[in-house]
Amino acid sequence: MSSGVDEFDIIRTYFAPLEGPDPRSRGIVTAIGDDAAVLELEPGRQLVVSVDTLVSGVHFPPDLDPTDIGWRSLAVNASDLAAMGADPHWFTLALTLPENDAAWLAAFAAGLADSARYHDLCLVGGDTTRGPLTISIQVGGSVASGEALTRSGARVGDLVFVSGTLGDAAGGLQLLQGATSTDFTAEHEELVARFRRPRGRTELGAVLRGIATAAIDVSDGLLADLGHIARQSGVGAQIGVAGVPLSAALRASFPADVALELAVCGGDDYELCFTVPEAQASAAVARAAGVNCPVTCIGRIESAPGVRCMDEAGRVVGYARQGYRHFGEPGL
Amino acid sequence: MSSGVDEFDIIRTYFAPLEGPDPRSRGIVTAIGDDAAVLELEPGRQLVVSVDTLVSGVHFPPDLDPTDIGWRSLAVNASDLAAMGADPHWFTLALTLPENDAAWLAAFAAGLADSARYHDLCLVGGDTTRGPLTISIQVGGSVASGEALTRSGARVGDLVFVSGTLGDAAGGLQLLQGATSTDFTAEHEELVARFRRPRGRTELGAVLRGIATAAIDVSDGLLADLGHIARQSGVGAQIGVAGVPLSAALRASFPADVALELAVCGGDDYELCFTVPEAQASAAVARAAGVNCPVTCIGRIESAPGVRCMDEAGRVVGYARQGYRHFGEPGL
Repeated sequence: MSSGVDEFDIIRTYFAPLEGPDPRSRGIVTAIGDDAAVLELEPGRQLVVSVDTLVSGVHFPPDLDPTDIGWRSLAVNASDLAAMGADPHWFTLALTLPENDAAWLAAFAAGLADSARYHDLCLVGGDTTRGPLTISIQVGGSVASGEALTRSGARVGDLVFVSGTLGDAAGGLQLLQGATSTDFTAEHEELVARFRRPRGRTELGAVLRGIATAAIDVSDGLLADLGHIARQSGVGAQIGVAGVPLSAALRASFPADVALELAVCGGDDYELCFTVPEAQASAAVARAAGVNCPVTCIGRIESAPGVRCMDEAGRVVGYARQGYRHFGEPGL
Repeated sequence: MSSGVDEFDIIRTYFAPLEGPDPRSRGIVTAIGDDAAVLELEPGRQLVVSVDTLVSGVHFPPDLDPTDIGWRSLAVNASDLAAMGADPHWFTLALTLPENDAAWLAAFAAGLADSARYHDLCLVGGDTTRGPLTISIQVGGSVASGEALTRSGARVGDLVFVSGTLGDAAGGLQLLQGATSTDFTAEHEELVARFRRPRGRTELGAVLRGIATAAIDVSDGLLADLGHIARQSGVGAQIGVAGVPLSAALRASFPADVALELAVCGGDDYELCFTVPEAQASAAVARAAGVNCPVTCIGRIESAPGVRCMDEAGRVVGYARQGYRHFGEPGL
């Protein structure tokens, strides 16, 4: 990783503490400060790696608190490990900054450090450059060989589950963008916190190994992400929209139809959507309860392609926006 | 990795071919299209990972041919693997683009594919977002456990070597920036090509395992990068500037003093600078010759901290700019 003197200072000052204690015990042989990190996994384990980039004004509002940007940048990557059922290990950071703003860096590093502790990830390398604010994080985790949860294993008859509640982050973002009042209630604050500080469901992902047939994290929206599972598994799905779990805060903050649309189409919740054979459903619920994560059955895998939403009367419900485009600009 | 529908098309159209043939044989279990890639290494091997970000206008001129941008983005990362002595395996791509420009993407992907073949790396995952042009690449390689070349192993008395010739890329960039004429000679074109299409010295890095005591790639400039080895090894170094290898093209294109300063201070050559015990020097030269890579002894490791440049009369030579700041803006 190319390094000018000032970049070294930035890494040493703000990010070296993120290496965490006793990196050797996690298979980290050489980390920050060399050309690359050296990592070792035990035999029979598979490495799982993912990368996600966050761009200011695209993935978060430019005025978002840098502490929240730091938290969020790692959380969305940890969520990819969760969706693979991988145990989290390490991450690298590629940070592009318009200026060397010490206060911004300290706040960003603090949020990133909190997120690293929460998600049990150590920083092993980084690269800082000057340019428009962009944060690209690569995470590495592992699973016992063959145990990774993929998007392609769903089978006809499997039940479709989601963790937690959906629509909160999208609701929080609407509130931040001033779609309603700026005089926030406690429920509003709860939704905004879901947007500011998403939590990757790594513990849930880990306990679903050997039970779930497919999994994905809900980043683009339930319909879009379940659509990815359906397409990559060569199947389809039907969900009952009345069964989609909504938080009390979302119900209190938006009209019922808006809340439901946020839950079905809105992204950024970073809950897991996963499929399990019916015979394993109670085991999945029990394991999820064991890591304090509520899960809800919302539908079933079918052979007909596509994802169909049904209301309680058995009528198909259509949604204009199938895929959520994150903050601001549409995706590429 | 979050994916809108259009992003999927981009990845499938332009980047899926970069996965290469027979990924299973390289330990790649699940690659592009899931939440993360699943990789497996054999027991007794250590994973080596690195990340480097390239920002338009900072690391390359905005008008650089997108084919060259694609080549370069991967080459600078492959160079980090070379500096660790790692065998190259895979990479992930985080691409931020201001607009969905099919011609740009096709050219970028073509250059990236050429570079992937040259450096023996397979794409295993990616993320595309909208925003200012930024390319962040993470590479993964491996070494037998304990064999990675680090920056911290240089010992007093070791000889300092560099591969190839230095200063060519910095000279090429000066020519591109119009510091001299725009009427390019064949020598000028050769220098510009060194800037446009740097080549990571992965084969050299691999054969230096077990021989070199420390290594780094020359990205920031010889003085700056040898300075990293010296500092991280707790030693110093003395180099004879008359022995620094200059290409015939560099000598033909610049006055002698300018050529030498480009070679000593200029970055972007991506040659390796490494140290070897004197008793191993002939083995290092022979192994380098075995992979068709010339190497030159330019100095020696000493106990006094810092890097000293000496001329043929034994006088200390000073250089104003110790560290190279890449194209455009200074580093952070």
